[in-house]
Amino acid sequence: MRIALTGGTGEIGEALALRLGRDTDHEIVVGSRDEQKAADSAAAYREELADRGVDRAIGGATNDAAAAEADVVVLAVPAYYVADTVEAIAPSLGGEQVLVSPAVGMSGGEDGLSYNPPDAGSVAELAAEAAPDEVAVTAAFTNVPAERVADLDQSIDMDTPVVGDDPEARQTVVDLASEIRGLRGVDAGPLCNAAEVESLTPLLINVGRYAGYGCAPSAKFK
Amino acid sequence: MRIALTGGTGEIGEALALRLGRDTDHEIVVGSRDEQKAADSAAAYREELADRGVDRAIGGATNDAAAAEADVVVLAVPAYYVADTVEAIAPSLGGEQVLVSPAVGMSGGEDGLSYNPPDAGSVAELAAEAAPDEVAVTAAFTNVPAERVADLDQSIDMDTPVVGDDPEARQTVVDLASEIRGLRGVDAGPLCNAAEVESLTPLLINVGRYAGYGCAPSAKFK
Repeated sequence: MRIALTGGTGEIGEALALRLGRDTDHEIVVGSRDEQKAADSAAAYREELADRGVDRAIGGATNDAAAAEADVVVLAVPAYYVADTVEAIAPSLGGEQVLVSPAVGMSGGEDGLSYNPPDAGSVAELAAEAAPDEVAVTAAFTNVPAERVADLDQSIDMDTPVVGDDPEARQTVVDLASEIRGLRGVDAGPLCNAAEVESLTPLLINVGRYAGYGCAPSAKFK
Repeated sequence: MRIALTGGTGEIGEALALRLGRDTDHEIVVGSRDEQKAADSAAAYREELADRGVDRAIGGATNDAAAAEADVVVLAVPAYYVADTVEAIAPSLGGEQVLVSPAVGMSGGEDGLSYNPPDAGSVAELAAEAAPDEVAVTAAFTNVPAERVADLDQSIDMDTPVVGDDPEARQTVVDLASEIRGLRGVDAGPLCNAAEVESLTPLLINVGRYAGYGCAPSAKFK
C-alpha cells in the first residue's frame, strides 16, 4: 500500500514514518503544507533508517500531492488543524481511500489533562464531517506516545483501538497498526465510539503522572 | 476498615463483596433500600464464601445504616440511582469517609455502547455534587466487569484507574482495589478526570464486541 502522512513532519508523523519504514514494506510519503519541509523530513527519516541498515525510499510532497495517490492517508496534524487539513486535501481524496485520524483534543491545567473534544463529538468525527462522503474515516494511533515511538531504540508493547464505520477500512487500519512491531491494532467498532477511543489518551497521560510512571504508560486490552 | 456496599445486592456489589470477602480482612456490610433484601444478599454471599472455605461475617443493613459506620462507602448502584442514593445516605456521611463511585452512564444502540455522562460531567462528579463537602469522593471499579468478577471461579488480571481530589482518599482506594487478587488500583489523578476513567468502560465493551473477544477485555496499563 501507499501511505501518506499528511503533516508528517511532526512527532506522530515521524513516529509512524520510522516505524512503518522499519517494520513494513508499504510505500511512505511524508506530506506538509511546505513541500521543502516535507522533503527535508523525508530525507531525515531515510537517513535515520539507513543508519539502522534499512534502505527505504521515503518521499516528501505537499499534503495534497501525498494524499492524491495514497491508499491510506494519516492526518498527522494537531487536532486544531484536522478540519483545515482535510478540507485542503479533499479534492485529492476519493473512492477507496482510508483516512486515519490520530489526533486528540485535550485541555489541561494543574490537575492534569482532560479530554476536550470538538463539537463534532471527537476529532475523528470532525475529520469525517470535512471529508468527502465516499472516503472511509477511522481513528487510530490516538494513544501512541509519539516521542517515545519516534525513538527506534525504544521497544514498544501497546494496543491501539481502531474505530470507523466501514468494517473493511477498519480492518485495513487494524492490520496496518499490527504490522508495527510491538503495536497491536484492536477493532473497537464504528466511528460513533471515537470519543471513547480518544479519551484513552488523557487517561493514560494522567495515569503516567499520578501513578508514578516516568511517562504515559501503554494500554493493553487482554 | 469497614466497607459499606450500598446497593450491594446488585452485580457490582456482589462482585466486590465476594472478592473483598475472599481476599481481604476488611469488614463488609451490604446495604439496600430494603433491609431484608440486604440481609438475604449478605447471607447468600456468606454461603458462597463458606462453600469455598472462607468464613466471613458479612452483614446486611439499610443503605443508611451501612454507610453510617463505614470508612469506605461504595455506591454500588446503577448510574441513574447514584444521586438519589447519595442524598439518601448523606445524613450518615461525614468526616473521614471515602465515597467510591463505580457506575458508568452509557447509552447504546446497534453500533455498540457510547459514554453518556450526566450534566455534572461524570457519574462520580454527580456523586460529589450530592455528597456533603467534607466527604472525599472517588471513582474506581468503573471498568470491573461485574458478572465475570462475581464468579469466583474466574481468575482476573486487570487494572482499575482511581480518581478523586483527596490524594489520601485516592491512595486508600488504590490500595483497597489492589488487595483484590488479580486487580490493581492505578492512581489517575483528580476527580475532573473521572469522565476519561468512566469512558474506558464502553471502550472495553466495544473492543470486546468488535475485536472478537468473547466478553469485554480487561485494561492493563503497562
